[in-house]
Amino acid sequence: MGKLYAVGIGPGDPDEMTVRAGRILNQVRIIAGYHGYLDLIRHLYPDKEYIDTPMRGEEERCRMAIDAAKRGADVAMVCSGDAGVYGMASLLCEMAEGSGIDVEVVPGVTAALSGAALLGAPIGHDFAVISLSDLLTPWEDIERRLEMAAKADFCIVLYNPASHKRRDHLQRACDILLRCVPPETVCAAARCIAREGQDSRVMTLRELREYEADMFTTVFVGNSRTRITDGKMVTPRGYRRSET
Amino acid sequence: MGKLYAVGIGPGDPDEMTVRAGRILNQVRIIAGYHGYLDLIRHLYPDKEYIDTPMRGEEERCRMAIDAAKRGADVAMVCSGDAGVYGMASLLCEMAEGSGIDVEVVPGVTAALSGAALLGAPIGHDFAVISLSDLLTPWEDIERRLEMAAKADFCIVLYNPASHKRRDHLQRACDILLRCVPPETVCAAARCIAREGQDSRVMTLRELREYEADMFTTVFVGNSRTRITDGKMVTPRGYRRSET
Repeated sequence: MGKLYAVGIGPGDPDEMTVRAGRILNQVRIIAGYHGYLDLIRHLYPDKEYIDTPMRGEEERCRMAIDAAKRGADVAMVCSGDAGVYGMASLLCEMAEGSGIDVEVVPGVTAALSGAALLGAPIGHDFAVISLSDLLTPWEDIERRLEMAAKADFCIVLYNPASHKRRDHLQRACDILLRCVPPETVCAAARCIAREGQDSRVMTLRELREYEADMFTTVFVGNSRTRITDGKMVTPRGYRRSET
Repeated sequence: MGKLYAVGIGPGDPDEMTVRAGRILNQVRIIAGYHGYLDLIRHLYPDKEYIDTPMRGEEERCRMAIDAAKRGADVAMVCSGDAGVYGMASLLCEMAEGSGIDVEVVPGVTAALSGAALLGAPIGHDFAVISLSDLLTPWEDIERRLEMAAKADFCIVLYNPASHKRRDHLQRACDILLRCVPPETVCAAARCIAREGQDSRVMTLRELREYEADMFTTVFVGNSRTRITDGKMVTPRGYRRSET
């Protein structure tokens, strides 16, 4: 029986992968993943066998990876960012249940961290991560989480703020946040992090409402103490005496 | 003028560092940090100059790093985990404001991700990260965030669940959570992640209340759908048809 790895490869540039993730991708015989992610790393591992499925083929991809492991191959399922944050780790663990196959999760730098680094330090204090995709979650649950996160004064990171079919989700999310926090709250968007076309912009919550996010965007909403420092979005932890 | 880097070195084992973080540590002339973190990497970079301050010396450490950069040296300030999550990135950005020194933040695998990987996939859906340290945050704010996070059905990751002086914070946090979520909620603790003595345990919220965490522990509280799968803590994202 082979071994299954769920490997987070970070935001895009292979330089942002951990040493361990790179070593495991070198070791395994088969690499599985969404073809958009595989395209980021295929040139580095030209001699591997690839299991390549489209975006919505998650269950099929897992099944193929599990079958390959049952036949004796070590398989790495790659995920962009971290394998456990909206990644494939949970589905892989669930589908491999009872099979006797060992599933090892290899963490990576998720967009909340890589986007934050690009912007400065927007999540320097307690934060919440919320996906605005309602493909797998009822929109009412998402609304409730947005409201609670704003009321609790969390910094908030929004994944999947928009897609072709869901153009207004970010606007609707901003409307909920605006009920609880001021329109001047410092916000930002990071796009194509560590990939071609990388871009970021700091703005207010009012401006964020009009921002046209896409599926390559990660959005940051500051807490009540977040401010702009030399163009960077910074949430203090409170170390400085003047702020404690 | 030198350049300042805030570098997240991951949980401990240098294998969990990104390739970029390792490259920057190789490039700079000076490495600054809390000595407990420097001890994890010092053997890899024996020829560097080190700025080494104790745990509470954050402001002094930043000042020394900024002064060294002003004198022309490239300086890397290392943080365990990620540089921006309860790390030094925000303080460094704030203190370098207006100095003209370029601060670059290099992300790393924070304990929410490395601990999650060790446990399975506990943060496979929306999650909140909360520090239980009230050194820099009023306890009332922490309580409110715990309550809101539980009401919103977030997976919750608790940093700094205890220290020598704050032995009962985890118990108090559990009491707040128990007002909102069932005592059978799947929880876990990960200790000394990617270091000597690494350990993890899956338990219920009721059991977590009695768990003796220390400053090397990261705590995970599942959401209403988190379950145990082959001994792992797994929060489904909802891919499986039976669960959507």
